[in-house]
Amino acid sequence: MASGKIIALSGGVGGAKLGLGLHQICAPEELYFITNTGDDFLYLGFYIAPDVDTLVYTLAGVNNTETGWGRADETWKTHNVLGELGADNWFKLGDKDLALHLHRSKALRNGERLTSITQDIANRFHLKATVLPMSDHMIQTVVDTNKGLLSFQEYFVKQANKPKIKNISFKSKNPEPSAEVTEILMDPDLKGIVICPSNPYLSIDPILSIEKIRQSITESKHPRVAVSPIINGQSVKGPTTKIMDELGLETNVLTIAQHYKDYIDGIVIDTSDQDYVGQIESMGIQVKLSEIMMNNDDDKKRVAEDVIHFIDHIS
Amino acid sequence: MASGKIIALSGGVGGAKLGLGLHQICAPEELYFITNTGDDFLYLGFYIAPDVDTLVYTLAGVNNTETGWGRADETWKTHNVLGELGADNWFKLGDKDLALHLHRSKALRNGERLTSITQDIANRFHLKATVLPMSDHMIQTVVDTNKGLLSFQEYFVKQANKPKIKNISFKSKNPEPSAEVTEILMDPDLKGIVICPSNPYLSIDPILSIEKIRQSITESKHPRVAVSPIINGQSVKGPTTKIMDELGLETNVLTIAQHYKDYIDGIVIDTSDQDYVGQIESMGIQVKLSEIMMNNDDDKKRVAEDVIHFIDHIS
Repeated sequence: MASGKIIALSGGVGGAKLGLGLHQICAPEELYFITNTGDDFLYLGFYIAPDVDTLVYTLAGVNNTETGWGRADETWKTHNVLGELGADNWFKLGDKDLALHLHRSKALRNGERLTSITQDIANRFHLKATVLPMSDHMIQTVVDTNKGLLSFQEYFVKQANKPKIKNISFKSKNPEPSAEVTEILMDPDLKGIVICPSNPYLSIDPILSIEKIRQSITESKHPRVAVSPIINGQSVKGPTTKIMDELGLETNVLTIAQHYKDYIDGIVIDTSDQDYVGQIESMGIQVKLSEIMMNNDDDKKRVAEDVIHFIDHIS
Repeated sequence: MASGKIIALSGGVGGAKLGLGLHQICAPEELYFITNTGDDFLYLGFYIAPDVDTLVYTLAGVNNTETGWGRADETWKTHNVLGELGADNWFKLGDKDLALHLHRSKALRNGERLTSITQDIANRFHLKATVLPMSDHMIQTVVDTNKGLLSFQEYFVKQANKPKIKNISFKSKNPEPSAEVTEILMDPDLKGIVICPSNPYLSIDPILSIEKIRQSITESKHPRVAVSPIINGQSVKGPTTKIMDELGLETNVLTIAQHYKDYIDGIVIDTSDQDYVGQIESMGIQVKLSEIMMNNDDDKKRVAEDVIHFIDHIS
């Protein structure tokens, strides 16, 4: 088991895959996730934090592997009756999943911080790893599209990420990290920082939009490693390459490396992308080739091991 | 099928039984329920109207006959996970039932009136009868007990109606009936008013606590008939006689008749209570003997027929 504190920046599904791998090979009490909350939104009156939940469910082993989100062994009674009543049900909430949103929303109304509620929830799921929302304050990903300005969930779920993206921004009255995020980023015993293979523009950029986080990572003396969300010009999951196209970017690992260049010392890319190694290295970024498609738990563990070895190699 | 507009004052389970009987024998578009909302409360952030829902579910034929509340074919996923998360789950909400609360709460937050939302919900369940909450404003039943002041649900559900009642009151900043309730009470084409066999103190008194309703019924020229919730000294359902005991009242139909004497011209009591006929009649209240225990749909229909014949007889 690898030792030393690891920070992993993560969005939802893609990030949680590597997260689970890291969780298997690192001492969980030394593993800290800083999780995107730019997708968080109010729905039917309660607060939903999709990426935080996907990560918690995945680490706890209760995630729904069929849908890629929500909980396993799920039912949809409330969702279906909402439909029968003519109510909003464009965001599909399972009956088990719903309980978490009700619980968290009540705690938030009672004045608890998102971070402490998340810790409490993680404890209920017996997690020893620490899942930290990037902020205790609302920071909303806003997508400027050919259909107008959309919140992340309007874009991603309600409109099934069909609108063409012109720009992505992050709206907040208080774009501050939590005390816990600040503290772990300053920890002198840090072994390294990992940027998980989440969507760089929609899942990682919201985290990096917080100046104190961005600055801490930019200035960090600890090894910083990203895992590419692109393999051979294709998104592993979700609309990453579609968005890159719309933003006028080349859909390859070079673009990813350029995007992260201020934040990483090294990048793990797929062996199928080895032709880009020279160009990425010329940017001053070390490259590790690996088979980074994670189809099963063994893949996740193996990629996580490669990431940790890469960190050991860089430091 | 009986014709002419009927108003029925109703609480939850007991009232809904007679309600269903009336629904079977009256033209449903001429049937108007004025329903207790003194039990309504906020729970986990949403507004719950137990008696309105019990009535709607019962008339729609989707009520849970095993529990006596909630919906048939129900599951408890959200409820169970709330328990696992250490959240409040003392009020047991089924997964289907929950959708109604979410839908209504959102509509209320959007500024809709409880009455119009209830109409919308009733339409969704294809009801032709009209279910009217007694008010669009919060009127809360407060129970003064040996365990202190309790809201209705704290008393009835959380503490399983175990505390001893000293007094019952109704708290409101705006104890007004809705426009729809006022209108139907003033309707010149009314055939009669029925007080269903709900708990007089906890289900009917909240309705009568609204001065305009109380006054309309007191002064009404149309026949007004109650059905006793007491048979042979026993509550048909729930804690009626327990409460009567605690309030120092004799647990018999005479007490019920006295309680309602300003609001009724007649009362339907069980044949087993025929010994009280003389005393009730001496109060100026007509009496109809019937077998009023409603164990099945035939019973409900038969009692409803007796009520309507009684109204015809009085007018």
